[in-house]
Amino acid sequence: MTEPHRRIVVLNGPNLNLLGTREPELYGTESLADVEKLVRARADEVGYQVDFFQTNHEGALIDRLHDERGRTDGVVINPGGLTHVAVALRDAFLGTQTRLAEVHVSNVHKREPFRHHSYFSDIAEAVFIGAGIHGYAHGFDALRRAAEKG
Amino acid sequence: MTEPHRRIVVLNGPNLNLLGTREPELYGTESLADVEKLVRARADEVGYQVDFFQTNHEGALIDRLHDERGRTDGVVINPGGLTHVAVALRDAFLGTQTRLAEVHVSNVHKREPFRHHSYFSDIAEAVFIGAGIHGYAHGFDALRRAAEKG
Amino acid sequence: MTEPHRRIVVLNGPNLNLLGTREPELYGTESLADVEKLVRARADEVGYQVDFFQTNHEGALIDRLHDERGRTDGVVINPGGLTHVAVALRDAFLGTQTRLAEVHVSNVHKREPFRHHSYFSDIAEAVFIGAGIHGYAHGFDALRRAAEKG
Amino acid sequence: MTEPHRRIVVLNGPNLNLLGTREPELYGTESLADVEKLVRARADEVGYQVDFFQTNHEGALIDRLHDERGRTDGVVINPGGLTHVAVALRDAFLGTQTRLAEVHVSNVHKREPFRHHSYFSDIAEAVFIGAGIHGYAHGFDALRRAAEKG
Amino acid sequence: MTEPHRRIVVLNGPNLNLLGTREPELYGTESLADVEKLVRARADEVGYQVDFFQTNHEGALIDRLHDERGRTDGVVINPGGLTHVAVALRDAFLGTQTRLAEVHVSNVHKREPFRHHSYFSDIAEAVFIGAGIHGYAHGFDALRRAAEKG
Amino acid sequence: MTEPHRRIVVLNGPNLNLLGTREPELYGTESLADVEKLVRARADEVGYQVDFFQTNHEGALIDRLHDERGRTDGVVINPGGLTHVAVALRDAFLGTQTRLAEVHVSNVHKREPFRHHSYFSDIAEAVFIGAGIHGYAHGFDALRRAAEKG
Amino acid sequence: MTEPHRRIVVLNGPNLNLLGTREPELYGTESLADVEKLVRARADEVGYQVDFFQTNHEGALIDRLHDERGRTDGVVINPGGLTHVAVALRDAFLGTQTRLAEVHVSNVHKREPFRHHSYFSDIAEAVFIGAGIHGYAHGFDALRRAAEKG
Amino acid sequence: MTEPHRRIVVLNGPNLNLLGTREPELYGTESLADVEKLVRARADEVGYQVDFFQTNHEGALIDRLHDERGRTDGVVINPGGLTHVAVALRDAFLGTQTRLAEVHVSNVHKREPFRHHSYFSDIAEAVFIGAGIHGYAHGFDALRRAAEKG
Amino acid sequence: MTEPHRRIVVLNGPNLNLLGTREPELYGTESLADVEKLVRARADEVGYQVDFFQTNHEGALIDRLHDERGRTDGVVINPGGLTHVAVALRDAFLGTQTRLAEVHVSNVHKREPFRHHSYFSDIAEAVFIGAGIHGYAHGFDALRRAAEKG
Amino acid sequence: MTEPHRRIVVLNGPNLNLLGTREPELYGTESLADVEKLVRARADEVGYQVDFFQTNHEGALIDRLHDERGRTDGVVINPGGLTHVAVALRDAFLGTQTRLAEVHVSNVHKREPFRHHSYFSDIAEAVFIGAGIHGYAHGFDALRRAAEKG
Amino acid sequence: MTEPHRRIVVLNGPNLNLLGTREPELYGTESLADVEKLVRARADEVGYQVDFFQTNHEGALIDRLHDERGRTDGVVINPGGLTHVAVALRDAFLGTQTRLAEVHVSNVHKREPFRHHSYFSDIAEAVFIGAGIHGYAHGFDALRRAAEKG
Amino acid sequence: MTEPHRRIVVLNGPNLNLLGTREPELYGTESLADVEKLVRARADEVGYQVDFFQTNHEGALIDRLHDERGRTDGVVINPGGLTHVAVALRDAFLGTQTRLAEVHVSNVHKREPFRHHSYFSDIAEAVFIGAGIHGYAHGFDALRRAAEKG
Repeated sequence: MTEPHRRIVVLNGPNLNLLGTREPELYGTESLADVEKLVRARADEVGYQVDFFQTNHEGALIDRLHDERGRTDGVVINPGGLTHVAVALRDAFLGTQTRLAEVHVSNVHKREPFRHHSYFSDIAEAVFIGAGIHGYAHGFDALRRAAEKG
Repeated sequence: MTEPHRRIVVLNGPNLNLLGTREPELYGTESLADVEKLVRARADEVGYQVDFFQTNHEGALIDRLHDERGRTDGVVINPGGLTHVAVALRDAFLGTQTRLAEVHVSNVHKREPFRHHSYFSDIAEAVFIGAGIHGYAHGFDALRRAAEKG
Repeated sequence: MTEPHRRIVVLNGPNLNLLGTREPELYGTESLADVEKLVRARADEVGYQVDFFQTNHEGALIDRLHDERGRTDGVVINPGGLTHVAVALRDAFLGTQTRLAEVHVSNVHKREPFRHHSYFSDIAEAVFIGAGIHGYAHGFDALRRAAEKG
Repeated sequence: MTEPHRRIVVLNGPNLNLLGTREPELYGTESLADVEKLVRARADEVGYQVDFFQTNHEGALIDRLHDERGRTDGVVINPGGLTHVAVALRDAFLGTQTRLAEVHVSNVHKREPFRHHSYFSDIAEAVFIGAGIHGYAHGFDALRRAAEKG
Repeated sequence: MTEPHRRIVVLNGPNLNLLGTREPELYGTESLADVEKLVRARADEVGYQVDFFQTNHEGALIDRLHDERGRTDGVVINPGGLTHVAVALRDAFLGTQTRLAEVHVSNVHKREPFRHHSYFSDIAEAVFIGAGIHGYAHGFDALRRAAEKG
Repeated sequence: MTEPHRRIVVLNGPNLNLLGTREPELYGTESLADVEKLVRARADEVGYQVDFFQTNHEGALIDRLHDERGRTDGVVINPGGLTHVAVALRDAFLGTQTRLAEVHVSNVHKREPFRHHSYFSDIAEAVFIGAGIHGYAHGFDALRRAAEKG
Repeated sequence: MTEPHRRIVVLNGPNLNLLGTREPELYGTESLADVEKLVRARADEVGYQVDFFQTNHEGALIDRLHDERGRTDGVVINPGGLTHVAVALRDAFLGTQTRLAEVHVSNVHKREPFRHHSYFSDIAEAVFIGAGIHGYAHGFDALRRAAEKG
Repeated sequence: MTEPHRRIVVLNGPNLNLLGTREPELYGTESLADVEKLVRARADEVGYQVDFFQTNHEGALIDRLHDERGRTDGVVINPGGLTHVAVALRDAFLGTQTRLAEVHVSNVHKREPFRHHSYFSDIAEAVFIGAGIHGYAHGFDALRRAAEKG
Repeated sequence: MTEPHRRIVVLNGPNLNLLGTREPELYGTESLADVEKLVRARADEVGYQVDFFQTNHEGALIDRLHDERGRTDGVVINPGGLTHVAVALRDAFLGTQTRLAEVHVSNVHKREPFRHHSYFSDIAEAVFIGAGIHGYAHGFDALRRAAEKG
Repeated sequence: MTEPHRRIVVLNGPNLNLLGTREPELYGTESLADVEKLVRARADEVGYQVDFFQTNHEGALIDRLHDERGRTDGVVINPGGLTHVAVALRDAFLGTQTRLAEVHVSNVHKREPFRHHSYFSDIAEAVFIGAGIHGYAHGFDALRRAAEKG
Repeated sequence: MTEPHRRIVVLNGPNLNLLGTREPELYGTESLADVEKLVRARADEVGYQVDFFQTNHEGALIDRLHDERGRTDGVVINPGGLTHVAVALRDAFLGTQTRLAEVHVSNVHKREPFRHHSYFSDIAEAVFIGAGIHGYAHGFDALRRAAEKG
Repeated sequence: MTEPHRRIVVLNGPNLNLLGTREPELYGTESLADVEKLVRARADEVGYQVDFFQTNHEGALIDRLHDERGRTDGVVINPGGLTHVAVALRDAFLGTQTRLAEVHVSNVHKREPFRHHSYFSDIAEAVFIGAGIHGYAHGFDALRRAAEKG
């Protein structure tokens, strides 16, 4: 864990492909393309590689985590609706020992009670809620700092 | 939301391909083919198009909902065992603003306590429980009436 | 239980006399008279007799169920606010072995949490929620089908 | 409270008029008439007057309790389905300071969990569960002994 | 809702006819007749009509609320033991859109835990607990002020 | 199970040897010797044998139940404080298929909340609470009637 | 406790200095100055002295209660947000044996669930909820009547 | 169900492909290949066929169960993180009437509380927890014995 | 803990002496003698000594554990009904640092909810549920493997 | 209760014979012999007799309490694992009206949640947690002071 | 709310003066002075004024919020241990209509369960957990963006 | 932590200034002055310095703990009503790494349920409940012993 890989992956779970087009009063008008632009800019600034992946399938997120094992400094993840139910995805982080930063674009604490519990927060490096797409950039930075601390 | 699309989609979740062949004392002897025949007959009567899709994968249901976005008057859904756990599928309805009617062939309230909560009922137009495959036809009608009311 | 009585009773509990005149955004504008017309039409079609009774007293509903014992193919009931508290009314169904279909005009799952539990759903043939006054007709049909199956 | 009235009232709540005719595997084949014969025999033996009343209306039970106030040594009551919900009936016992013995013909602890709590047990002189119609006679005796103790 | 009716109704639920005669250490020695005198005096002072009704039947309270619909500026109610269970009575207030003030003569928070929840407080204009029969007069005033505000 | 053994055993659990000498306001002044006299009188009347056993050890109650297996028409038991915790004693009744009647001298529902649940009530023939030592005689009768019914 | 002090103190907890200026749709437009005027008028009428104190510090409320010990007929208190958490303030009332009337300007039962429990209601003489600033005057009266009863 | 198929399937859910390489202090150093070798050896010994399948997708497990319907004596399954959430997978066992043995390599009861509930244990033939990869062989044997009992 | 004692003890709690004779549909027809034969055969095979003890007294199980301290490689235990309540027995394992394997002959997850929690599972090496008397042999093996690993 | 007996008994429950030899990081290195020496020294100082008893059987503790009835000023007890389950032992204290001081050598609040509830604390004179074996001496003193106060 | 004040306040609650000196493995080694430097640098960059305040008194935080009312674009707050209990502080934000960003230096979800609920998250613009002192800068940015959006 | 400071601080929270003057049946008649005399005597005996501080403000207790950091062998604290709510005070102990002994003069387990949980017990060296003012002396001794052990 000494030398950082200088590479971070951004994963987006179910429905996040709709970002910027659905419920704008909740999620704003910025899309995943904007997320990518924002995080890539930040990554370029500090000389990191960054990859993006979105899927509506929990299994595909797990597959991807297995593939990334040992090749990344961490994963910025917005698990969407899987946040509250996906024990297997949680286990994929534990099993591959992948550091993670959890991001929610809107403030989940203003929504239904079942959205107040996350299966990821207690294993995350850091959690960013309600800061819009800036949460992804903050997550990138938190993982980078952690990687550089070793 | 003024002019109806005159098109409704019927989605069936995990294990509903077994309908009519599994646990007949619970689910009766009618199959998905019977569901299709029943609903199509009703749709023809009122000049609507109707499409059917069954899958055992939550992610595939979400993908389909995204594809149908803006092209349908609503979705009749029997989420099967996903009823009680699928927050991401729920979010797909909210995110695509798709009207839904929830159907359960058997009476879920006669079964295990964990089957008494649904992640879909509070966002559904209407809920039909225990009316056998007629629930699908009732769901079709409820969505059609809602669409025509605008 | 072999030969059906070809007679079904529709019971409405407390406050349903106000239907169509109270909270129209919740309950629509159709009244109990409309319910009666709709269900009677359906009953005539299939050659069934149908009777209607509304009261604000739980005891009166129980008395009526006792009177109907052995004279009907089932009871379509909208218990109103009694849905969530009336154990004695539940016992009247069990004690007289009367088949029932439960109807709620509006979607109770969109309302207060205490409305999410019903003392009738687990002993009902079928449950219809949020389909407006059509739920009564669906209930009639479900009971008729059950009676004819024996 | 010194001299007993030598008079006890037996109240039966909702659906107990069906006793002996409904669900015999649960409640046996003896009817309220048998209850009356059994308790009256016991009362004659010890020189007590005994009156009987059954109703499906909670309010009518409360009215009767008010009428009996100060004229009885206690009330043997089988509240039926009201056992688990009738706070106002409980208050009628507290408000009229009427001693009570609670009777359930069948063993309620073998049934649904909501039947395991009673609003009457903690204010009762004694509770008799599952002893069939003999519970009424036991209740009569418990109240008589209490009255004679003063 | 502009012009007040200048008429308020006072409803008392089960066992409140016993007021002043039962458990005086809890409820004091003043009776419903004293309540009537107190509130009528206040009503005369401000030129309002006031009517009183007590019953031990939940159904009768609901019937009365339906009758009063559109003829009153609100209802002062002491639901007695129904406070904690009467969803149908709650619905009658919602269905007839009747403004209400909730009164409890004694301090229910000093009694059994099941008395700490009320089905009326969250839909009441105001709640008065433990102020003896003065609570009825306070309730009258709260409704009058609300009516005059429109 | 056809022919009764005409023999019933009365078991008393921990602390019941103190009966009549401890907390008389709760348990009265009658001792286990009085229980024995009362039940023996009743048994003699109907030609039954009856045996008595008290112990403060749960294990000893289980041992005794094993010894009595197949030699008795049932066991009248007052489990004392074991009522609320003794799963192994419950299992001894199930394992030896011994019919039981549960007795509590005082009204346990007037005491601490943890005394409101019993591991024996749902497997008992009948339950007698608060009828003093008469509960033992009632228990004897309930078991005798059950045995004679076969 | 025979002779009243003819002096009552009105305490207001955190944020009540904002009364009349914050969230007027919840709290109305009347300020603490209006409260003071209203209660002082009532006090003058009946020849009582009345003092007012507001603070955002729980400790300061406790200090004040200690200072007032034995010098007052009671305290009208609106604990604001401390209502739901301030055990130490509750203890100050118990420790100084100060009679209290609890006041909430708006109807707390219409707000978040955590506002439905109060650490003061079960030790209060009376509770006034949702009656606007009139609640303070009602509280003053309740304490005065209690003091005069002795 | 008379003649056994002499064929058993071993299913492994999400992340079990990592077995032996992840968190060795929890899961040991043996891999799925070792599981396969161990179970195949045992199967050869008794003349059974055995097949293996691992996937990170719940839907794929359900698909496989449907395919295996009627062709196997049972399924040894380690559902991984799906253990605690996969109602649809549970339904696939119920719907295809497939006998199952549940295996967990490590002792789940030493981990987070949400891992203490399984949606499979109450429908399993047997459950093996913490016995390392030997649990798979035990599961094989339990299913074989059950199949041979018929 | 380096060199194994090559000696394992099998403890059986309350009612397990009835094994094979009680409730055969739950527990099968094999007795403790069969357990002994099965485990002894396995022990002989691998050159271990094995001792057996059954008692209906929790205290006697604890005494035995104290006596075995430091003389055994672990204890296979079926605590019977003590599984769900015996904190002191749990403490005896902790206090003597005895490794344990927990066995239940039948599947406890198919029974009453109170049987779903065990005071032993989280301190066990392994848990075997529903594998009949083979669970004891599996437990023996698990302890032996653990002992040999040191 | 006027004149003290000048005699106190120290009872130790299951596993406390292991004190000083088990889990020293939790319980320290002092044994029951050290407890005896410490308490006896204190007793000699103030002229009291003191007796000691340890057992792993709940029944034996109850038997001993019955024997000591009326011969002691109180019992210092460390119930060990029985603390959280032994209702019958609790009843023995209530039934014999024996004053008690509860002692736990280690701080139970640092351990599993089920150790945070005690069936003895609410009936104890005083409770001493985490003060090592000095807790026994503190318990002795608390009982002596209480006895001398009468 | 159109024109931003270009001024933001950073509040720190109890014990945050110890930051950087207490529990460095939890909170890191950076102090409040470092927070101030970091946020001030960011504020200078964008031409904002920023003020800092730390106190161990909830009342003082409320007082400060009242003083800042209408003079700031929002408050970055780390409420420390008040996060989980301070309803009055929550009310101060609501009452003064102050926008807030909630910051926790360490990941509270890795700590005791009572730290998983916050009285501030559901009224916050955004929440930053576990990002070290960078969370304060992120909070500053979130408030600035919100202010500039109007 | 090698050499003890030979100095211990005794903190008393809200309302403890009333000790000896309030509710003597709960708290006895000894005042804080008596506490000081008792503890000082003990401290003199063993050559320790001891300081005392009482306040009704949680913030002031926290301030004092910060001031004492590194200057004391521990704090004997009676948090009064703060026991059940003061997370920030708990954090002050954790943050300053101050050893504490928790004291309650009366037996809190005999009072309201909300007094049964303490935010201090699980981080305390020892807890003393119901031993009157002697608890303070016991606390002093426990801290001294711990300090001397290093």
